[in-house]
Amino acid sequence: MSAVPAPTSAATNPVPFEFEAGPWSHHHLARVEQALSNWVGDGAPAGLGDAMRYAVLDGGKRLRPLLVMAAYEAVCSAHPAAAAATTTAAAATTPADDAALRAACAVELIHAYSLVHDDMPCMDNDVLRRGKPTVHVQFGEAQALLAGDALQAFAFELLTPDGSAIPPATQATLCRLLARAAGSAGMAGGQAIDLASVGIVLTEDQLRQMHRLKTGALLQGSVLMGAVCGHAAQPAYQALSDYGAAMGLAFQVVDDILDVVADSATLGKTAGKDAAADKPTYVSLLGLARAQAYAQELLQESYAALARSGLPDARALGALADMVVRRSH
Amino acid sequence: MSAVPAPTSAATNPVPFEFEAGPWSHHHLARVEQALSNWVGDGAPAGLGDAMRYAVLDGGKRLRPLLVMAAYEAVCSAHPAAAAATTTAAAATTPADDAALRAACAVELIHAYSLVHDDMPCMDNDVLRRGKPTVHVQFGEAQALLAGDALQAFAFELLTPDGSAIPPATQATLCRLLARAAGSAGMAGGQAIDLASVGIVLTEDQLRQMHRLKTGALLQGSVLMGAVCGHAAQPAYQALSDYGAAMGLAFQVVDDILDVVADSATLGKTAGKDAAADKPTYVSLLGLARAQAYAQELLQESYAALARSGLPDARALGALADMVVRRSH
Repeated sequence: MSAVPAPTSAATNPVPFEFEAGPWSHHHLARVEQALSNWVGDGAPAGLGDAMRYAVLDGGKRLRPLLVMAAYEAVCSAHPAAAAATTTAAAATTPADDAALRAACAVELIHAYSLVHDDMPCMDNDVLRRGKPTVHVQFGEAQALLAGDALQAFAFELLTPDGSAIPPATQATLCRLLARAAGSAGMAGGQAIDLASVGIVLTEDQLRQMHRLKTGALLQGSVLMGAVCGHAAQPAYQALSDYGAAMGLAFQVVDDILDVVADSATLGKTAGKDAAADKPTYVSLLGLARAQAYAQELLQESYAALARSGLPDARALGALADMVVRRSH
Repeated sequence: MSAVPAPTSAATNPVPFEFEAGPWSHHHLARVEQALSNWVGDGAPAGLGDAMRYAVLDGGKRLRPLLVMAAYEAVCSAHPAAAAATTTAAAATTPADDAALRAACAVELIHAYSLVHDDMPCMDNDVLRRGKPTVHVQFGEAQALLAGDALQAFAFELLTPDGSAIPPATQATLCRLLARAAGSAGMAGGQAIDLASVGIVLTEDQLRQMHRLKTGALLQGSVLMGAVCGHAAQPAYQALSDYGAAMGLAFQVVDDILDVVADSATLGKTAGKDAAADKPTYVSLLGLARAQAYAQELLQESYAALARSGLPDARALGALADMVVRRSH
């Protein structure tokens, strides 16, 4: 079953968009997979390169890269001529396209490194991920630690290509957004709060803060990085930031719901793990029905932010928020 | 005793410079310590911020920050007027000064995170560093892992301050240099080769390659980042790159020598550890006398590169290379 039943009211994505099986996601997923395969592990010593590739090229949902691409295209829909004008004679794609593809890969590298380190014995001690042995099981703990470290560094290397036509200001801003989303006031900070919260009763504000950092910061960061690649103007940028915040929090609320309602086979990981670990969740705090209603509210917030953005075509972002809330795993 | 006796020939730093106890290092160390203390852990959740500060604010030699500062000032000595001209009315220091201080702190954050992760049980399993319990002993393994991860992200955040007068091209180049020095073709790559080399006989070329990556890349990267902050012209930049390569390799050769000739008390860490771990070193490969001669050769190479740079005042860089080779710990 999906996490959040379709509402009985008219609260659906205002602009229908064939997403999951459609050509949009197929096209972008293929580009991102190809780019990751070309780039990851290139120039690394053999064992380390193998571990890095194993960690990344394993068929995740690639939600974060798709958010980058969807935000980039939504912003470009407001000024298609400007994007075209930056095309260089030598390149088949524009510098802005290149920046977006690099940003899409960079956010996935950060996500992948965080999974490698999270799975290690001193953290969650998981031996399986997506049906495969985790990186430390396959390559040893030391190599897993190094592979995670190297993937984080490589994310920033991808954003700052030498001799590129990507404007330096775009490169610097992308690094800033990614560093903040990944660091102590973002993903790593959220994980630290999570560590400290086992067995503790959090208020809703504290739980929201933990989730905004732990998963929300990188999801929102993905949206903002896509917006920067498309040179978003301020009002649209702010609206996309609001979209990213609502969608990012919805992702975690739904994760908490799925931990309760889904079985392990559908989920692809152990269900009921949060409760077993005595971790505070939206379900333990609000109960299942109110958590589902809250996810629905956040979905509406994300739609409203897209409407406020004034961007002519933000359908893919709407579809991604929809997928985040209605997914079954 | 020091690692490498003073040579009997005239092969000393061509320009005498009062370094270790002198006002130059005192001034810069104070600035770097203050900046690190202001910045590290700011905005992080309490436990994580404490672990980050513990890892960084522990009185290391700060060799890498000093290399950034020395390279920056050497380059500025070629065009002091240009550096002064960029002073903004509002700031007491120039944007270039700010960039150099940030770069100095960023390289130290990367060094500090690498020590935290290296000390963990799955790597070197060290319980003491500089006389204090290592981060994972003090804060737990999970917090140590996260603190290392967050320090790496924070290094890139420091290089890309919002609303700063540091030119975006400088910010982007600093991120590129740091990412490469830290990643799979730099420090993390060298550590992976090191992991795979226990109990194996390496050729001198293989040993050099391992050390160039493991410690040399970040030392050379520090020099290059300082050069970029000072807007070095190409011939000087290349000479400083050569200096960094020779000095960086010398650092590791001397490390190998000290592991044999120094006692643990002087070294501040366990002596004889490489041999006990059956790790290939310059001493095991060349013997002690030839390793000492090689360190001396590399010191001369670093002096020659400084002479080639054409920079009016590269004395601090010369003194740092001298310190690297003659240090006793």
